Amino acid sequence: MSVAIGEWLQQWMQKRSGEPAYRQLYRLLRQAILEGRLGPGARLPSSRQLAADLSVARNTVLQVYEQLAVEGYVSAATGRGTFVEDISHDLPVRARPVEHRQGAGPRAAASGPRLSERGRRLMSSLGYSDRQYGAFMAGVPDVSAFPARQWMRIQNRHWRMMRPELLSYAPSGGYPPLRQALSEHLGATRSVTSHAGQVVITSGIHQAIDVAVRLLCDVGDRVWIEEPAYWGIRNLMVSQGLEVVGIPVDAQGINPRGHDLLHPPRLIIVTPSHQYPLGMVMSLARRRRLLEYARQHGCWILEDDYDSDFRYGGRPLPSLQGLDEAGLVIYAGSFSKMLFPGLRVGYVVVPERLAGPFASAVAELFREGQLITQSVMADFLREGHVTSHMRKMRSRYAARRACLIESVHARYGTALRIVGDKAGLHLVLALPRTADDVAICRTAYQRGIMARPLSSYYLLPERAQKGLVLGYAGVPEADIPNAFTVLADVIDTELRKS
Amino acid sequence: MSVAIGEWLQQWMQKRSGEPAYRQLYRLLRQAILEGRLGPGARLPSSRQLAADLSVARNTVLQVYEQLAVEGYVSAATGRGTFVEDISHDLPVRARPVEHRQGAGPRAAASGPRLSERGRRLMSSLGYSDRQYGAFMAGVPDVSAFPARQWMRIQNRHWRMMRPELLSYAPSGGYPPLRQALSEHLGATRSVTSHAGQVVITSGIHQAIDVAVRLLCDVGDRVWIEEPAYWGIRNLMVSQGLEVVGIPVDAQGINPRGHDLLHPPRLIIVTPSHQYPLGMVMSLARRRRLLEYARQHGCWILEDDYDSDFRYGGRPLPSLQGLDEAGLVIYAGSFSKMLFPGLRVGYVVVPERLAGPFASAVAELFREGQLITQSVMADFLREGHVTSHMRKMRSRYAARRACLIESVHARYGTALRIVGDKAGLHLVLALPRTADDVAICRTAYQRGIMARPLSSYYLLPERAQKGLVLGYAGVPEADIPNAFTVLADVIDTELRKS
Repeated sequence: MSVAIGEWLQQWMQKRSGEPAYRQLYRLLRQAILEGRLGPGARLPSSRQLAADLSVARNTVLQVYEQLAVEGYVSAATGRGTFVEDISHDLPVRARPVEHRQGAGPRAAASGPRLSERGRRLMSSLGYSDRQYGAFMAGVPDVSAFPARQWMRIQNRHWRMMRPELLSYAPSGGYPPLRQALSEHLGATRSVTSHAGQVVITSGIHQAIDVAVRLLCDVGDRVWIEEPAYWGIRNLMVSQGLEVVGIPVDAQGINPRGHDLLHPPRLIIVTPSHQYPLGMVMSLARRRRLLEYARQHGCWILEDDYDSDFRYGGRPLPSLQGLDEAGLVIYAGSFSKMLFPGLRVGYVVVPERLAGPFASAVAELFREGQLITQSVMADFLREGHVTSHMRKMRSRYAARRACLIESVHARYGTALRIVGDKAGLHLVLALPRTADDVAICRTAYQRGIMARPLSSYYLLPERAQKGLVLGYAGVPEADIPNAFTVLADVIDTELRKS
Repeated sequence: MSVAIGEWLQQWMQKRSGEPAYRQLYRLLRQAILEGRLGPGARLPSSRQLAADLSVARNTVLQVYEQLAVEGYVSAATGRGTFVEDISHDLPVRARPVEHRQGAGPRAAASGPRLSERGRRLMSSLGYSDRQYGAFMAGVPDVSAFPARQWMRIQNRHWRMMRPELLSYAPSGGYPPLRQALSEHLGATRSVTSHAGQVVITSGIHQAIDVAVRLLCDVGDRVWIEEPAYWGIRNLMVSQGLEVVGIPVDAQGINPRGHDLLHPPRLIIVTPSHQYPLGMVMSLARRRRLLEYARQHGCWILEDDYDSDFRYGGRPLPSLQGLDEAGLVIYAGSFSKMLFPGLRVGYVVVPERLAGPFASAVAELFREGQLITQSVMADFLREGHVTSHMRKMRSRYAARRACLIESVHARYGTALRIVGDKAGLHLVLALPRTADDVAICRTAYQRGIMARPLSSYYLLPERAQKGLVLGYAGVPEADIPNAFTVLADVIDTELRKS
């Protein structure tokens, strides 16, 4: 038998000359044992003999045997040789009849376990884009303008200090000085009422919603989102097993009526400062009504204040949270639009009685860290770099917005309507009801222009308005007219088809 | 009426002299409108008159009126004055009778909405620690030894390049060169078979499990975890609505029998290289049996390879993933133990057919970013700093482990047993069945020593072994004997009680 192994190995080893002898021999012997060609109790050739058969150094064979022994495939009995171990199951496997048993190769794998139902739903409704930068990517600020030198200066200061406690897992809630700085910043800029203990650092809106949903909603609970709404929220909800109900927005914001009011949700997610993606501001009357409804029916409200810092005419409205006296509003924001999305630092400001649960839940479910990044962020905020960067960006984005609108007007006059307040990082170009905005975006993408179909932001297809969500913040003014021309050519071609 | 407002405001403003007049006036007027003391249509005093009544600058009053107008509380009719707006509900709120309606203050809030059922369960079983560094914190490496200079050098290089595409949201899967580098590194060190497309970057084990569970399990599905197991997994599962079944481990690892084998789970989570927290290695026979069982019954396996790189005698066993030919194993790891936990960079290596779904799900559910950190990490890995750091740490941790064992022996001889292979960052000090390991840890924490009760790692109390999980990696040898003396005094006091 020993000789047979040697010959068989010799055959195989000649075939694959690129691989080092050690790895080849190890792989082939292991495979033979796993496949049962070398059964339990079989004796391996002596290292001396096998080395001669294969024309390899004896040490190579010894090392392979040792490795196989360490891994439990073989055992060496001193003076008697090396024997294959019994690696079969130590308890009988209770197998139900299985249809495809011939081999565990790719075919068997294809008929193996599958995605979960919610996993398949998620895969069939993906919203993220493969590209995340360029004209007219929505939701992305001008990251090239980020004051990297200031950031590096502070970053190097913190790395040089290298406090061990900042390199370990984070205590719950995040880096305390950042929580303090945010409490002050949001109080001054967004009329958010809080103390530092109510501020919990997150990795962004997605994590904020994910944690809120687990803390506040059980599987099967109803959640209201705006119709239309940010696509990312929907999939998060569905993957958490919730019933998602879209509540239409009008010029004053979310507008629940009749049937919906009779079935209160556990949680209401709104964008009061700048509706996403349509861009209106929720009126004060609507805010009061929403808060009162929530108070009476025991609903939580999550206020997604994603880009309220960018408003180009008039002052921004204060947050909904600042009006909340019953402790129902979870205020969520991030530095993604103010600074850059890749930073992945966000925050929630929660009612007093949720402060402990939120901090604990983030710590428990996600094991926080990145305290160095948070410490850099805290200093960056306290030293005023966020404020001065936003001031610069505000005038830059206002100019880009004006430039895009001018391009639209130059091409279409008033034939296509522009939707959205003078605010934020995007606008919506409304299209006729008959337009196929999905097809337009697909074709535009092939020509290097990103746009999101407005219809894809709706839960119910029959409610879907047609249009294009166009981000302008990241596009230099010089590029806007040409990029829009490319897009407009696609629009015109597609509109002629419909 | 105007005079009345002026007088009333005067009264109030005198009471709180610390607040600037502008903010005070704004706050009081807004409050009066919200509470209905200034009803719809009420005319505010002229700015001139109110300024005189309150002895403030007229400009202050004008600014407050303007702010209130921007926010929709009042409107100015040119030449006629400033009037309170109708901020009541624009549609009748359909209120069910509510018990506590008197005021929306703290009392009402206390009877408002509550945490979800799963939120309450999560809050009642928190496992994370408020402190994350010091003797004998388990699961934390010696972060003070991290080669920060090398890291900063690479980090500054990438920040100086400041490629905009690294500052935006990440495309799905993570930074491609890091995926490539990891595929090679894990192939060489852990016998993980993959190409770069199968590697998906995560923020750590928690995120890996969270995504796996949503992609692979529906609400109510059964998941097997080891008994005992890492506490963090349990809460993640429960918050995702899964049925968690603990399968006892023996000297060879997870050992499902009888009843359990008849009820196959959707997902099996194991720590084959170094069982957490008990420290044994899963035998080859057990690995083969597990893979075969999973193949026959359509189960997925998640291999949590959390600290396998630290083994102080003999070579580490290759990964379970490397044995998997049916494409059932999701291999998960992170740099938390190799480098530092606060980095929050982890990875999964998934079977070919899950590569797309995993990359998409992480992108969709969490909106990735931190590509700069990932690009630094890629270079740090490729330049060999991970390998050389681990080599240094291996001998350091081996010495610390030996030192802790020596302290145990010096105090207890063989009276208390040490559990766990010569590997990892912690060991388990076994205690008698009658010991109250929870009380010991609580008292030790008050004396500045962290230890985790072994019993808290079990799902079923009747199975719980008693002991202390002690991390030694982050504790300098010079500190170990004294820290252990403090702990041992607590142990002895508590054991006398039991």
